[in-house]
Amino acid sequence: MRELEERIRRDGVVEDGSVLKVDSFLNHQMDVALFAAMGQEWARLFAGEKIDKILTIEASGIGIACVAAQQFGVPVVFAKKSRTKNIAGDVYRVEVPSFTHGTVNDVIVSKRFLKAGERLLLIDDFLANGAALEGLIRLARQAGAVVVGAGIAVEKAFQPGGDRIRAMGVRVESLARIGSMSPGRIEFC
Amino acid sequence: MRELEERIRRDGVVEDGSVLKVDSFLNHQMDVALFAAMGQEWARLFAGEKIDKILTIEASGIGIACVAAQQFGVPVVFAKKSRTKNIAGDVYRVEVPSFTHGTVNDVIVSKRFLKAGERLLLIDDFLANGAALEGLIRLARQAGAVVVGAGIAVEKAFQPGGDRIRAMGVRVESLARIGSMSPGRIEFC
Repeated sequence: MRELEERIRRDGVVEDGSVLKVDSFLNHQMDVALFAAMGQEWARLFAGEKIDKILTIEASGIGIACVAAQQFGVPVVFAKKSRTKNIAGDVYRVEVPSFTHGTVNDVIVSKRFLKAGERLLLIDDFLANGAALEGLIRLARQAGAVVVGAGIAVEKAFQPGGDRIRAMGVRVESLARIGSMSPGRIEFC
Repeated sequence: MRELEERIRRDGVVEDGSVLKVDSFLNHQMDVALFAAMGQEWARLFAGEKIDKILTIEASGIGIACVAAQQFGVPVVFAKKSRTKNIAGDVYRVEVPSFTHGTVNDVIVSKRFLKAGERLLLIDDFLANGAALEGLIRLARQAGAVVVGAGIAVEKAFQPGGDRIRAMGVRVESLARIGSMSPGRIEFC
């Protein structure tokens, strides 16, 4: 998606070779007009697919998912990163390692909001190692829901997550796929 | 706002007298069509006010803020609950107690995204004790930004937060104000 690629080129900052900061428009300060354009693009890509619900993960997926959901006319559910092992209620639960923080999060969704047979579109801001997206897929499968596909804003195609998720049989539509990057230089696939 | 009050009456669940669960449409599963209507209502209430940016706090404020921001044509910044004391970078920081979890969060915003003189609308899903909203106000004041007001989805008017924030001179527009509640019964102000 040209608009997103141009924005990454203009405002993205590469640090240490593998960290791409897009926090001025994507995941700390958020450009909701850009999110609306991204939602339109996913709606075009997934046109003809029946989608009942969008599933994302806190925190930075939520804004993108909510604005995009308006294009699909469906509700959003966000998976929560739990800090306590003993959370009340009846939840689906997966463990998701965070490469950024060097920790493992318990990620949960209430069983009331994922149902067998529901057709889900997964949305997230980044796909790198694929741990978060795989966690969402495993939550969906616990519920017996159908993963129609995943809409990703930025895929680091030089990291293994995209290949791994596609090898699981999940359609991944990344709006910007970065083939390589270094400070001052970003190349898209 | 009648639409939100009716939804709370229909789908909200009161537990233990002081916990109101609205997680089927507001803060776990999210009805983005309702969020758009809420955004329109805040746009009507704050019409004539210059607003440069919306400031919210993760996680459950983000979706509401992003959908509402489309009515204002401004970006959203979300304050982050930090789990590490040693976070990189130049940030504004406040401590915010969580009554739900019995903990204290460091809440931070990058100094790049709050500037002196910027006119901010604060958005959050709940106002009860007012700790989170007060944290956002203190972050804004650290930056020298102007708090135009706060848009709240659900205010528990029987708890002290609303009075306390208004006494700080901040205009608070809550779309549903709960005067009292008990299991099976919710009364609005």
